[in-house]
Amino acid sequence: MARFLIIGERIHVIAPPIRKALQERDPKPILERAKEQIEAGAHYIDVNIGPADRDGEEIMPWVVKLLQSEFPNVPLCLDTANAKAIEAGLKVYDPTPGKAIINSADAGSRMGNLELAANYGAMVIGLCAKEGIPRDNEERMAYCTEILDRAIQVGLSPDDILFDPLFVVIKGMQEKQQEVLDAVRQISEMGLKTTGGLSNVSNGAPKELRGLMDAVFCAMAIQCGLTSAIINPCNKMLMDVIKTAEVIKGWNLYCDSYLEL
Amino acid sequence: MARFLIIGERIHVIAPPIRKALQERDPKPILERAKEQIEAGAHYIDVNIGPADRDGEEIMPWVVKLLQSEFPNVPLCLDTANAKAIEAGLKVYDPTPGKAIINSADAGSRMGNLELAANYGAMVIGLCAKEGIPRDNEERMAYCTEILDRAIQVGLSPDDILFDPLFVVIKGMQEKQQEVLDAVRQISEMGLKTTGGLSNVSNGAPKELRGLMDAVFCAMAIQCGLTSAIINPCNKMLMDVIKTAEVIKGWNLYCDSYLEL
Repeated sequence: MARFLIIGERIHVIAPPIRKALQERDPKPILERAKEQIEAGAHYIDVNIGPADRDGEEIMPWVVKLLQSEFPNVPLCLDTANAKAIEAGLKVYDPTPGKAIINSADAGSRMGNLELAANYGAMVIGLCAKEGIPRDNEERMAYCTEILDRAIQVGLSPDDILFDPLFVVIKGMQEKQQEVLDAVRQISEMGLKTTGGLSNVSNGAPKELRGLMDAVFCAMAIQCGLTSAIINPCNKMLMDVIKTAEVIKGWNLYCDSYLEL
Repeated sequence: MARFLIIGERIHVIAPPIRKALQERDPKPILERAKEQIEAGAHYIDVNIGPADRDGEEIMPWVVKLLQSEFPNVPLCLDTANAKAIEAGLKVYDPTPGKAIINSADAGSRMGNLELAANYGAMVIGLCAKEGIPRDNEERMAYCTEILDRAIQVGLSPDDILFDPLFVVIKGMQEKQQEVLDAVRQISEMGLKTTGGLSNVSNGAPKELRGLMDAVFCAMAIQCGLTSAIINPCNKMLMDVIKTAEVIKGWNLYCDSYLEL
């Protein structure tokens, strides 16, 4: 029974305390957010250091070593547009708790991250996009196939790729939601794994609605076959919904205490 | 944009105050529960008087007239195994707020309720079952087709039938959940309407889990095309999830206050 894979999103350069901690190489805020997410049930911790053009090659290995020394059982997702920073992180990454995930490759300028994943025995998120948001599912599926072909060429297994159809914001792109969910279904029916940045969905909506919107979208996406998401695992309602959807999908056995496990 | 149809389940003979009120012809508890459900957003009020072998022919018209005199804008769903009681209810039903719904016909002994619906200009829930729970979706779809054929023969429009694939309990029939959701998808893809008794899903689970389980199943079912459900509309979390799923389905336009509307 394969469980839904939860990638914790909260170590992100956009958050001011994390930005500061990365700049000043201050372990505390980073370790705190990692701990919270692991305790809340994250399987992977995403480490988003931003574009990091200047110092990414120093920051990424520093943060990888920091997190792995404190949490040796939790695998990491290395998240930056700077491929050299990814590579520097992979060089010091210990794969004992699980393969690193590169976040992300795409069908455009980030295609090279597939080779990087293959060279370092990592997994990779394959964004079904080239430039900006794909126009429709014909484009999404073309990029998905392009990434899959290239990944196999460089020696990755299809199981090493989490395809991301690119979740889009409801407020402004409401008419695209079913298209995205249908892409999840199509990719899943090919036997491939999927993921996506869930908080994209509720972006710009009133704060008190965001958890609900993300949770309901996630349940609907899991019904379509979604096997993973990049989320805030400290949102208990969202985690409860995911655990319930797993039971309904048959990915976890029901017992009266399934929320506690 | 067709909205999800909410049938309020709380006037049900199983509830002791309702059983007593029906026996004693006491309007108050019945009107109270109707009011609560209407205020919570129910579009239809289900009136379940049980088997009602003895006095159903008196009870049903009494309760129909009672509810319609107090709530002339809310249509009713007449729910009993006693076909004569249904007919007695239909005879006094005023269709101004919307057609009555008969709950329910099936492919077995209740097939005659299709004719009753046709004769009285009512809609009908078509339970995709004959005796007990269908073994698999081959059986479900065979019963669905049988009901559809017969309904058309007697002069009903397919739009007058809400097909109920028979939701089953997670605790005990976990492995059947995806089958039921797939039946919803198959029936929806035929362009037909669907409904179901949502609280079946969480039956027997700890009370604090039931709302969550029903809500997540409902979101997943709506993704599969479910167009209606028989629910407790006073469960706010469930109603919020349904409203959010409608937005993601494109059945209602997003606005920041969509939960309030």
